[in-house]
Amino acid sequence: MTLALVNGVAVANAGAAVALDDRGLQYGDGLFETTLLRNGEVRFWSDHLARLADGCKRLGLPGPSVEALAADVAKITAGQSDGVIKLIVTRGRGGRGYGVDAKASSTRIVTWHPEPAAAKSIRARWCTTRLGRNPALAGIKHLNRLEQVLARVEWNDAAIDEGLMLDTEGELICATSANVFIVNEGALYTPDLRFCGIRGVMRSKVIEAAANAGIVTHEEPLWPEDIDTASEVFLTNAVRGIRSIERIDDREWNSAPVASLLSHALGLS
Amino acid sequence: MTLALVNGVAVANAGAAVALDDRGLQYGDGLFETTLLRNGEVRFWSDHLARLADGCKRLGLPGPSVEALAADVAKITAGQSDGVIKLIVTRGRGGRGYGVDAKASSTRIVTWHPEPAAAKSIRARWCTTRLGRNPALAGIKHLNRLEQVLARVEWNDAAIDEGLMLDTEGELICATSANVFIVNEGALYTPDLRFCGIRGVMRSKVIEAAANAGIVTHEEPLWPEDIDTASEVFLTNAVRGIRSIERIDDREWNSAPVASLLSHALGLS
Repeated sequence: MTLALVNGVAVANAGAAVALDDRGLQYGDGLFETTLLRNGEVRFWSDHLARLADGCKRLGLPGPSVEALAADVAKITAGQSDGVIKLIVTRGRGGRGYGVDAKASSTRIVTWHPEPAAAKSIRARWCTTRLGRNPALAGIKHLNRLEQVLARVEWNDAAIDEGLMLDTEGELICATSANVFIVNEGALYTPDLRFCGIRGVMRSKVIEAAANAGIVTHEEPLWPEDIDTASEVFLTNAVRGIRSIERIDDREWNSAPVASLLSHALGLS
Repeated sequence: MTLALVNGVAVANAGAAVALDDRGLQYGDGLFETTLLRNGEVRFWSDHLARLADGCKRLGLPGPSVEALAADVAKITAGQSDGVIKLIVTRGRGGRGYGVDAKASSTRIVTWHPEPAAAKSIRARWCTTRLGRNPALAGIKHLNRLEQVLARVEWNDAAIDEGLMLDTEGELICATSANVFIVNEGALYTPDLRFCGIRGVMRSKVIEAAANAGIVTHEEPLWPEDIDTASEVFLTNAVRGIRSIERIDDREWNSAPVASLLSHALGLS
């Protein structure tokens, strides 16, 4: 972690930077956004801001102003051309147990990281850790991410980049840190996320780009069997873009024309 | 927050004490215990340690040694007779996204707080926020507590102390920060927590004390209707002990003989 701001102030010691009673630490009471910095611009910045605002609204969390976030990003990216910018917004400090101190204001944590390498085509696996269902939290990029952690620590094989996750009823939902799309007879399908999963910014951009290209996207319940019968499977993530899956267990795919077309349409390649 | 240790070292500035990349903050990847200090002793200390160890095992989190935790508690309670000791244990710092850095060691955060006032008899309400079901996380006192936060912020009425929560299928599970018991025809009933909820230390002590007093406890699915027909309803919490409910909406209870008996048996009164 190279650069960090907490509430707009540069962090001198990343090892002791956040308040002990911050609700992000105490309860996971907050939200995050992970964005790509490219040529000095945060890609899809307005979409990330809109999703963050929606998350704040759904959690009843009085979030920071757009101006404060923009100032943080300008400050942390000064002199940086590329990389990853992660924003964390928590409900702030203190309160009596789970109850909230009405006078508390939200905490902003903004960090810059170097951009990770991302292959365009990857291997994936099935995770055994399931996602619980709760419509009240579905779609939101909140800080309660134990299920994803438990899924990600299921494997150590560096050749496998991602793991697909089902919910407790067996519906296909997502990868540990990506949304999933399948192609079947020329149409796109992606889980509707009515019970769990994160509504990714790249997911929305892909649905939009597909519509512009005349490809219909069906947001609906999907099941593991839908992967087997798909002509193409790809993952979307705001930082890593679109990555097609070349193999899951013994099932292989040799080409990914729709993923390529959409990557090109979104200027990701 | 008056006193705090992070990994055994006294915190100089509670406003900047925890690492930015601590997984407790980033993902809620950790556990906690809230215990009562009384006459210089942590009440039910061995039970709290056992639950913490069980949580670490279930999350695959290499936790701190009992010796390190005991040393922290001894250090923070030096000169203190009473109060609340909260322990947080996280999976430590860093890692690549949700993935874990194999070299990371867990973070210990130990804080002392003054003891809150706790009435023996309280008013409660029904919360509309539901708990999602996931057997993989059920029973564990982990740091993913957004559902409890959303339930607790549903009301501001200071006359109401607690809110009862159902899961997404409508089963009665707990209060926002307590387990729930009902009495019916002389027997105790409490939710079995097979899908969600925290397996409280005080809950276990109450079941044990009831058995010693010849009262059978049924751990099984309960529903809101079971509250209406109960002769007595009480909540259990490691710090606040046993609190009987005197009123929920229009339903009132005028006495709580079983709660009184168990409080006495456990030396809580």
